Amino acid sequence: MTGKKHKVAVVGSGNWGSTIAKILAENTREHPDVFEEEVQMWVFEEDVAIPEDSPHRQALGDQTHKLTEVINRVHENVKYLPGIALPSNVVANPDVRSAVKDATILVFNLPHQFIDKTLEQMKGHHLPYARAVSCVKGIEVANGRVTLFSELIMEKLGIYCGSLSGANIAPEVAAEEFCETTIGYDPPPMDLDAKQEFSPDNRHVINKQRQRKISSTSAVLQRVPDDYPCVDEKLVHRLFERPYFHVHVVADVAGVALCGALKNIVALAAGFVAGKGWGENSKAAIIRIGLMEMIRFGRFWFPDSVDEKTFTEESAGVADLVASCSGGRNFRSAKHSVEKGVSVNEIEQSELNGQKLQGTSTARAVCDFLSTHGKLNDFPLFNAVNRILDGGVSVDELPKLLK
Amino acid sequence: MTGKKHKVAVVGSGNWGSTIAKILAENTREHPDVFEEEVQMWVFEEDVAIPEDSPHRQALGDQTHKLTEVINRVHENVKYLPGIALPSNVVANPDVRSAVKDATILVFNLPHQFIDKTLEQMKGHHLPYARAVSCVKGIEVANGRVTLFSELIMEKLGIYCGSLSGANIAPEVAAEEFCETTIGYDPPPMDLDAKQEFSPDNRHVINKQRQRKISSTSAVLQRVPDDYPCVDEKLVHRLFERPYFHVHVVADVAGVALCGALKNIVALAAGFVAGKGWGENSKAAIIRIGLMEMIRFGRFWFPDSVDEKTFTEESAGVADLVASCSGGRNFRSAKHSVEKGVSVNEIEQSELNGQKLQGTSTARAVCDFLSTHGKLNDFPLFNAVNRILDGGVSVDELPKLLK
Repeated sequence: MTGKKHKVAVVGSGNWGSTIAKILAENTREHPDVFEEEVQMWVFEEDVAIPEDSPHRQALGDQTHKLTEVINRVHENVKYLPGIALPSNVVANPDVRSAVKDATILVFNLPHQFIDKTLEQMKGHHLPYARAVSCVKGIEVANGRVTLFSELIMEKLGIYCGSLSGANIAPEVAAEEFCETTIGYDPPPMDLDAKQEFSPDNRHVINKQRQRKISSTSAVLQRVPDDYPCVDEKLVHRLFERPYFHVHVVADVAGVALCGALKNIVALAAGFVAGKGWGENSKAAIIRIGLMEMIRFGRFWFPDSVDEKTFTEESAGVADLVASCSGGRNFRSAKHSVEKGVSVNEIEQSELNGQKLQGTSTARAVCDFLSTHGKLNDFPLFNAVNRILDGGVSVDELPKLLK
Repeated sequence: MTGKKHKVAVVGSGNWGSTIAKILAENTREHPDVFEEEVQMWVFEEDVAIPEDSPHRQALGDQTHKLTEVINRVHENVKYLPGIALPSNVVANPDVRSAVKDATILVFNLPHQFIDKTLEQMKGHHLPYARAVSCVKGIEVANGRVTLFSELIMEKLGIYCGSLSGANIAPEVAAEEFCETTIGYDPPPMDLDAKQEFSPDNRHVINKQRQRKISSTSAVLQRVPDDYPCVDEKLVHRLFERPYFHVHVVADVAGVALCGALKNIVALAAGFVAGKGWGENSKAAIIRIGLMEMIRFGRFWFPDSVDEKTFTEESAGVADLVASCSGGRNFRSAKHSVEKGVSVNEIEQSELNGQKLQGTSTARAVCDFLSTHGKLNDFPLFNAVNRILDGGVSVDELPKLLK
């Protein structure tokens, strides 16, 4: 009955994608009873030059190479995760359709701006009963609604998708420094009792993920065939858990994904007060207030699916928030903007080559969304961050605004 | 009916005691309808020399002075809170009995090792219906029981006592950098309905504070006379709230006090992993796991009074924990011990003149206590910290011990 093994593919190969591929490949090797050893990793192909001081220079010479070729020859993503040996069972593949075609488990780990196009390319070229986990950071906010990337994947591909988030700065995880993560994965009932069909009239899962948009959801899931091991919380745990990477699997998919997006607004606020030279007390207050607003936001938009404990007790919640407020681009850029007396926008121009911070776009989108729903006053910190970004208020006014 | 005003006294005058006196004196001035303006502050008398570069050198000359005399003349605690102007209505008093004799509200803010002796001196010399708030850090653990300082004050003096704790590094609060605090204050029923007497047979409050020790409690509280404004949550809030010091009053006195003690164990663990050079992910994981064990500890010893939200949502909980794991003596000393490859005990000798860290004594006492109750295995982080202190395990084993 369980004659088949799960085949895993990673969609994306930045530093976090490559790190996750490393973890997964370590585990597929360690559990050959359940998983095929090989882990396909879709790589957006590009030419790379091997630096003179690279240990791979001798093997690869001084000409440029395709990134996939480099990864498959020297087992290192020399461009995005240099210095970290990837297990040899990670196989880089420049063709996303070929990378995912046999995979029963898909792990999405790419920048959010590439997700739409990638899903478009994949559509119809993956197993219809595949299961997925999204490590994509952020949320989509448009027309008065919030969409999680796990939801987008579920709807576009018609496959169930959970979410992974945590205090997981990629280079630290890649270096196997101890950390934790949270995976939101609530197996569709059909996978557990191998009975139910999942159709628009029987959409327990999407229902739990997003009460508010159930009527427009058209995902029809197919059951994972009986000859595969059941894709339940235990199997997900087994696929991701490492001695240096402790995994909690929770049912709250929405909470996990939301935390990873909303924390960036709070990190900006923490950077603002740090830039003023205010101390640890102030930063701790910002973190606490931010955490409360994150919960409030989750309760508003996902009232029946979000679990407060995801925010207050899980790595995706409080731990990732703390880590993001101790460093990271959002925190640092906000701090610099106050120290230099310029706008965050100017910092984005001068220090980030015009690249937008995730926190600034999230703050604006979230405040627009809240304003549309008449809820902005319930979120004084989010609102204050947005107004500071716009130059409408100064950081000195924060204590008063947070009363 | 409300003809009388509350008179406030602070017992203790270190940097935190002086900071709190400043806050209280600002508020007694701002609310003359409810409070007497003058705030007495008991100062452990000592001789101080005025440094040459002090702005007070001209006024005070080069001879030594009594600390109380200096405070009352130049309105600055030049020894313990230099550079911060105290309101002129803070009156330093070297005699604790005289300082507290008319006070209806006592705020305890002194190092825990002085509390027993001070209470002994005060006994019978304070108003029998006074109400108190303890800012004393730590807990007493002996003979298989945990005692909070609020409980100790309540029992020794026979007056109701709440507790205050938060992410409140004293110099930052004194400099009026924005922060928050939590006050656990659950008014005795008699103060609210002005009816009940509080006796050993009617001990609602102590019951709520400590279920487990109720039979040995002998506090008999007296009602605050009707001609004083009611000492309820609102009045407590009014007495402590400042534009830069935001106050939440909660009913969970035990949770507030516990957080302030247990966080120090977690701060040691955070210092250990920082000393290994592990990054923000690791520290965030330690904070999260530590927070969970703090809650578990509270639930075990104060099962009916501790509120999990005090830990996860209040400044006394998550915020103070985060601040303590970002700096502070426990964190730094643990970090140095790992960096230098010596024991924390050696750091206490070499860097702290033999003074013991609050975290090391709390870790030992708490683990002894848990061991007595057969609960040590439910607290892997607390246990690991204690074993690292004893040299029984190494920091490298932490991830395995926390599985």
